Amino acid sequence: MSQPVDFYFDFISPYAYIGSTQIEALAARHGRTVNWRPVLIGVMVMKVMGLKPLPETPLKGDYLRHDGVRMAEIFGVPFKYHDLKGHNSLAACRAFLWLKRQDPALAVRFAHRIFKRLWVEGRDITQAEVVAEAAAALGVDTAALLAAIASDTGKQALNEAMDHAIKVGAFGVPYFVADGEPLWGCDRLWMLEHWLAHGTWKGAGAAVLAKAAARP
Amino acid sequence: MSQPVDFYFDFISPYAYIGSTQIEALAARHGRTVNWRPVLIGVMVMKVMGLKPLPETPLKGDYLRHDGVRMAEIFGVPFKYHDLKGHNSLAACRAFLWLKRQDPALAVRFAHRIFKRLWVEGRDITQAEVVAEAAAALGVDTAALLAAIASDTGKQALNEAMDHAIKVGAFGVPYFVADGEPLWGCDRLWMLEHWLAHGTWKGAGAAVLAKAAARP
Repeated sequence: MSQPVDFYFDFISPYAYIGSTQIEALAARHGRTVNWRPVLIGVMVMKVMGLKPLPETPLKGDYLRHDGVRMAEIFGVPFKYHDLKGHNSLAACRAFLWLKRQDPALAVRFAHRIFKRLWVEGRDITQAEVVAEAAAALGVDTAALLAAIASDTGKQALNEAMDHAIKVGAFGVPYFVADGEPLWGCDRLWMLEHWLAHGTWKGAGAAVLAKAAARP
Repeated sequence: MSQPVDFYFDFISPYAYIGSTQIEALAARHGRTVNWRPVLIGVMVMKVMGLKPLPETPLKGDYLRHDGVRMAEIFGVPFKYHDLKGHNSLAACRAFLWLKRQDPALAVRFAHRIFKRLWVEGRDITQAEVVAEAAAALGVDTAALLAAIASDTGKQALNEAMDHAIKVGAFGVPYFVADGEPLWGCDRLWMLEHWLAHGTWKGAGAAVLAKAAARP
């Protein structure tokens, strides 16, 4: 029972951002580490699943706009909602994978910076130069990072990450896998916490409902 | 703070079934009643949102098959997973609305019977005769019920229910609305419980995570 928890994320998802603020501490409470795995969720949704982007889906788009802000309040994290039009996380995801190959802990610190830039400061993360600037503050060699982002190896590493995500069925983010149990959404962190604590689903619902009503 | 909780459901959703087993007791713990509101979720997903049916969506379909069984275990309710091909809830939804106009409590008892038939016994609920049989056991006049299902009034009542569901943005089921706060999914019942207990989102995440880890 000491396998890492897989955490599939995309920087452009507000829910993945919220998940990223919780997952390390949650896993650590149960003696687990986290394996951070970037996914291009737009490619997954549009090309693999054949759906429209979530924010452009009728009815669901409005719900998401309200829900992102609410979820951040629920988990007590800073959040600035903004329209993602024109943003993409290709460079950031390639950079993450390059950093991860050298130093997984550094890559996680980098990921927190990118998430913060996009979802707390509301600034773009699309350009490779912006991504490199975030990494520079962590002492990363930006020329090497920019070369890695543009390289065939960088491209291939992300393609392989996507193939793996498709194979495990990570159709949305955040997507957590613990001991083979997949969980989609930061609204399911309670399920992950229960699973890691007890190794069974039994009683999870009743426990969490009765307790949600208790005074904090 | 004593408005009823709106509960949007479709009989053909396993998640709506699981929600239906929890919502009355949950609302009652906070002095609330429940307004049951049927929706044809297939029409919503395909015609209003322009998406594929969930079970036929790549990756998501596999997740759903695993997740339905798991969710039933989490909430401790009987459940038999089955393929829904060829099933629809048109007659059952029309019957529900006809019963609700006369006696909302009777309609809820009827709904529990239909949900049970489909998701516990794994039997079809498509045919109006099957729907009428379930109602007959509750003392309902089946000839009148069958006439109502086939009538223009019956058709119109469901159309109006759909228009209302679209207006409030109920894009999936179960969908709960409490004091204007919309919540999609039986994995969010903890949020509904927290909201009804505290009237705020603040602290909900930390409370529920810590509690999910505690021994039941």
